[in-house]
Amino acid sequence: MRILAFGDSFVLGAGDPDHLGWIGRALAGRREVTLYNLGVRRETSDEIARRWRAEAAPRMVADEPMRLVFSFGCNDCYSEAGAVRTPAARSLLNARAMLTEGATLCPVLMVGPPPVAEPDVAIRAEELNEHLKVLCARLQAPFIDVFRPLAVDGLWTREAADWDGAHPGAAGYQRMAELVAAHPAWRHFTGAG
Amino acid sequence: MRILAFGDSFVLGAGDPDHLGWIGRALAGRREVTLYNLGVRRETSDEIARRWRAEAAPRMVADEPMRLVFSFGCNDCYSEAGAVRTPAARSLLNARAMLTEGATLCPVLMVGPPPVAEPDVAIRAEELNEHLKVLCARLQAPFIDVFRPLAVDGLWTREAADWDGAHPGAAGYQRMAELVAAHPAWRHFTGAG
Repeated sequence: MRILAFGDSFVLGAGDPDHLGWIGRALAGRREVTLYNLGVRRETSDEIARRWRAEAAPRMVADEPMRLVFSFGCNDCYSEAGAVRTPAARSLLNARAMLTEGATLCPVLMVGPPPVAEPDVAIRAEELNEHLKVLCARLQAPFIDVFRPLAVDGLWTREAADWDGAHPGAAGYQRMAELVAAHPAWRHFTGAG
Repeated sequence: MRILAFGDSFVLGAGDPDHLGWIGRALAGRREVTLYNLGVRRETSDEIARRWRAEAAPRMVADEPMRLVFSFGCNDCYSEAGAVRTPAARSLLNARAMLTEGATLCPVLMVGPPPVAEPDVAIRAEELNEHLKVLCARLQAPFIDVFRPLAVDGLWTREAADWDGAHPGAAGYQRMAELVAAHPAWRHFTGAG
C-alpha cells in the first residue's frame, strides 16, 4: 500500500525530533506501507489545493493499493494583515474539491486540525473542524476528529507552548498518532488488523 | 534549517519499518531541522530532474537557511525492455543540471547510490557512483560515497535480499545514516557540531 499525505506542518511533523510526525508514528512497523509525506509548512487549503494533483501524479502507481490523506485547516484560521488567511467558506470548498477529486483516484481520508494556542485562531479552528466533519459525513468520506481530545488532554498544547507556540514534540505527535491509529476509520483505511 | 531531499526510494526510505530512511535517521534529534523527504520510488535521474523545481518552490522560504540534497542513480542503471533506463552520460548531465541549478538557490549536497544485488546493475551503479564523485569534485559540490562501505559491510544487501531484493530494513538504513552523519561534508552542510 502507498499512502500520500497532503497537508501542513502538522502532517509534515515539524518540530518532531524524530522526523516522523503523527502519520509516521501511526504507521510504525508497517514496512509494507510506503508513506509519501507531502505536508508543507504554513500552507492553507488554497495552497494545498493548488499543488496536490501535480505532486500526487509521479507517486501514484496502478499495481499497488493507493490511499490519499488530507489534513489541514489551522493555517486557514490565522490572520494576516487584518484578514483571515482563508475564510471558512473557501476552506470547505477546497476540502470538498480535494476529497471529491481524490476519491476518483483512490480511497480518501480526512484528519481534522489539531488545537492551536492563540484564542481567536483556536475558536475559528474548532468551528472549521466541526464544518469539515459535517462536510465529510455528507461526502461519505471518513473523518478523524483530534481537536477536542488533544485540547482536553493538554499534552499537545503544552509541548507546543514550550517550543514555537504551534508544534509539539515527540510526545504530542505520538499522542495524536495514537488517537488516529486507534480510530476504526484509520484501521479500515490502512487495512490494519 | 530546512532540508529538501530529492531522489528515489532509498531517499524515501522504502521498506524502513520506522518510516525514516537514512536521511530521517541522520537527522535524529535535530528538531530545529525541517526535513522535506521528496524521494519517489522507481524514479530515474530523468524523472527527478523533471519535477524537483516545481516541488522545491512551495517549500523554499527566505527567512531560514535552506539546503538541497540529491541522491539517485540505482534506477538509472536497471534495464527495461533490453535498454538501460538512463544511460550514464545522461545521468551525469541530469546530475550536473540539478546540482548547478540547485546551487543558485542554496547549498547542495549529493549522496551517491547504495549497492544493489543484481550483478549487471551493480557494476553500472558502481561506475556511475565513481562518475558522480568526479563530477561533484569538478562542480565543487560535496559528495558522500556510501557504495563501497555498504557493499563491504554486507548488512544493507543482506537485509535487502531478505525483503524485496532492493530495500533494506531499519538496520541497513541506520548503517547508511551513520556513514552519512559521520561524514565531514554532512556535518558542515547541516551545521552539526
